Amino acid sequence: MKSEIISVGTELLLGEIVDTNAAYLSQRMAEIGVDVHQRQTVGDNLQRLTAAIETALGRADVVILIGGLGPTDDDLTREAISAATGRPLVRVPASEQRLREFFAARNRVVAESNLKQCDVPSGGHHLENVCGTAPGVFVEHEGKLIFALPGPPPEFREMLQRSVLPMLRERLGPANVLYSRSLLLTEIGESQVADMLGDLISAQTDPTIAMYASPALVRVRLATKAADQAEADRKFAPLEAHIRQVLGAHVLGADDETMPVVVGKLLRERGATLAVAESCTGGLIASRITDVAGASDYFMTGVVAYANETKQRLLRVNESTLRDHGAVSEACAREMAQGVRKLSGTTYGLATTGIAGPGGGTPEKPVGLVYVAVADDNGTVVIEQTWPSTREQFKARVSEMALALLRKRLLGAV
Amino acid sequence: MKSEIISVGTELLLGEIVDTNAAYLSQRMAEIGVDVHQRQTVGDNLQRLTAAIETALGRADVVILIGGLGPTDDDLTREAISAATGRPLVRVPASEQRLREFFAARNRVVAESNLKQCDVPSGGHHLENVCGTAPGVFVEHEGKLIFALPGPPPEFREMLQRSVLPMLRERLGPANVLYSRSLLLTEIGESQVADMLGDLISAQTDPTIAMYASPALVRVRLATKAADQAEADRKFAPLEAHIRQVLGAHVLGADDETMPVVVGKLLRERGATLAVAESCTGGLIASRITDVAGASDYFMTGVVAYANETKQRLLRVNESTLRDHGAVSEACAREMAQGVRKLSGTTYGLATTGIAGPGGGTPEKPVGLVYVAVADDNGTVVIEQTWPSTREQFKARVSEMALALLRKRLLGAV
Repeated sequence: MKSEIISVGTELLLGEIVDTNAAYLSQRMAEIGVDVHQRQTVGDNLQRLTAAIETALGRADVVILIGGLGPTDDDLTREAISAATGRPLVRVPASEQRLREFFAARNRVVAESNLKQCDVPSGGHHLENVCGTAPGVFVEHEGKLIFALPGPPPEFREMLQRSVLPMLRERLGPANVLYSRSLLLTEIGESQVADMLGDLISAQTDPTIAMYASPALVRVRLATKAADQAEADRKFAPLEAHIRQVLGAHVLGADDETMPVVVGKLLRERGATLAVAESCTGGLIASRITDVAGASDYFMTGVVAYANETKQRLLRVNESTLRDHGAVSEACAREMAQGVRKLSGTTYGLATTGIAGPGGGTPEKPVGLVYVAVADDNGTVVIEQTWPSTREQFKARVSEMALALLRKRLLGAV
Repeated sequence: MKSEIISVGTELLLGEIVDTNAAYLSQRMAEIGVDVHQRQTVGDNLQRLTAAIETALGRADVVILIGGLGPTDDDLTREAISAATGRPLVRVPASEQRLREFFAARNRVVAESNLKQCDVPSGGHHLENVCGTAPGVFVEHEGKLIFALPGPPPEFREMLQRSVLPMLRERLGPANVLYSRSLLLTEIGESQVADMLGDLISAQTDPTIAMYASPALVRVRLATKAADQAEADRKFAPLEAHIRQVLGAHVLGADDETMPVVVGKLLRERGATLAVAESCTGGLIASRITDVAGASDYFMTGVVAYANETKQRLLRVNESTLRDHGAVSEACAREMAQGVRKLSGTTYGLATTGIAGPGGGTPEKPVGLVYVAVADDNGTVVIEQTWPSTREQFKARVSEMALALLRKRLLGAV
């Protein structure tokens, strides 16, 4: 089954918004095994939008439009489907009643413009919108399926999940549904993974294996068509076991097990607690840890010690350390980790100190230099790294590096 | 001048990556006054890509392709331009020499596949890539301009700025260049702005005025065509003054003057310093403040007091306050702000305590309840708000709300 996506809206062509809906829809289509062979982006222009739908109907089995279903004159998706299929727009009484009730409940008057949202190309029907006023549109035309969904992401996603995906899954039949499982890797580069898994990746046909790299993370994705999740899991299991054996502790977790989730799980399992002292990461490590619900079970204290005085007064870093080695030094990182641990009475203390830039670098201590330390009952480990990059990238990388160090300490690897 | 963008790559159609390049390019086109009338997204398929280029050449003056310039068999953009224009690919000796030198310097062997990057459709030329190995492509064909740029965002943006935009600006002539200025608004909703500026927005033709809303911020954008920045500034000035007068302190700043930037500027101007005590925001306020280069001039200390014990021990919140009012209370927020200020000896202390959820809510204190406090020599101000949302949205909104409170204190408005 081949599909085509048409994103509608002049704001997209002006670059005012990034088209995350199209990427989200593409992912969902890939997951259920529907091939997205092309995408188009068209402004709020009836003639071009109609032509885009005609083109898509000529080469795809399923056409999904996103946006252009609102009440204003600029919203032309219903009209364009009508023009492209030759099906006149007809009013749906049930939709009109629902809209009138919606407005009455809010003491608002229904304008004539609002009512056009109650129209549908003849032979089609509406898809319920539980988050907004614009219903979606479904038309089956000469054996092709046409869907139109509203553009606001919460409405779009809800309607996709509730109405569109179940219809497509049903038409595809269960054996054609694609399942996937991603393994998230840490402290290893894309080329190293390619070296270690290269033969496996090129020889493997079902499940397929693909590798994706982002600045923070390499991901290995297994995908297979199966009747249900249990069958997919049975197909993934031996392959996942093999990859985990080859890559060892580089495998951070699966699917949504990111670094803060994995570290939180390890801390909770061990009944351990954590305090963090941050200089160059400026609170980002604490913020990422507390993005995980339930973090209060193990995360006690964060100290953002930007000023040297804060390092001394709160974290008890020695004045002589700052004088002799500077704030960006192995000794300072060590004392920060130990200091925040003692201050909070936690199992672990984690610390960062470095030069984020763009200012503050010297020939001996360049922009990008960073020390990360973890302290516990058994002692303190400090690592040094140099990562010249933008300020935000630096903070992101160092926060990941610090959590990776803590993970290794929790696993007994350092 | 009409343009069309073609994004190339199967990874886009699988939703593995979001097409931020297309949005970025659309913005730059809008800025210089080139109309992007349509976008296409095509996979790594020679036939479909060739057809997409033919279609685009039939309706646009400028066609810009993004991606598909790498060395692998999947990279087909050069081949498709050649097929669509009937111009055979020819090797460019200078490009081949540069590539061989690049590889020699890294002790790597040049594979035959690498050399195809040195080809260009006849009559065209290469655009230098200073960040990678794949040069861009430019061909003028029957009066139409065709550009092809590499997909990795740093390479794409660099080449766009260095090679493509100057060529397009030159062809457009100076009077056709679009300049814009955005005013960022705080603590006001989209509909309120529409009420206050509605007449102005609908009556205004040059500069144009448009309003954009995101969850965190409303933005009013002025745009005009001018010979240079100075002329544009002269056209913006009276309109901006009028809007600033109508909206008063709701105008946070212009262009990139976000909340952390504006607060940092105010603190620096006054020679004031800041310490932050965070509970529910978990370090996000400190992290946003330290995203701004030079924040160490005014930001001294952050304390993430997730545990009650940390609130007591570090911030000197009274045991009786926690017992009688709880950690999420006006009294606790007040004592946290005063405590972190005293601890750090700063001009200002800022504090947050709330229930981010999804767990932890009660009928009296529901998920989304938050107290934010600012303390200085003149006393302490606490505000209460309820914002039920996802954990990450809650943290983002509360961090903005806290910085907005500090800004008002700095301006003497509370």
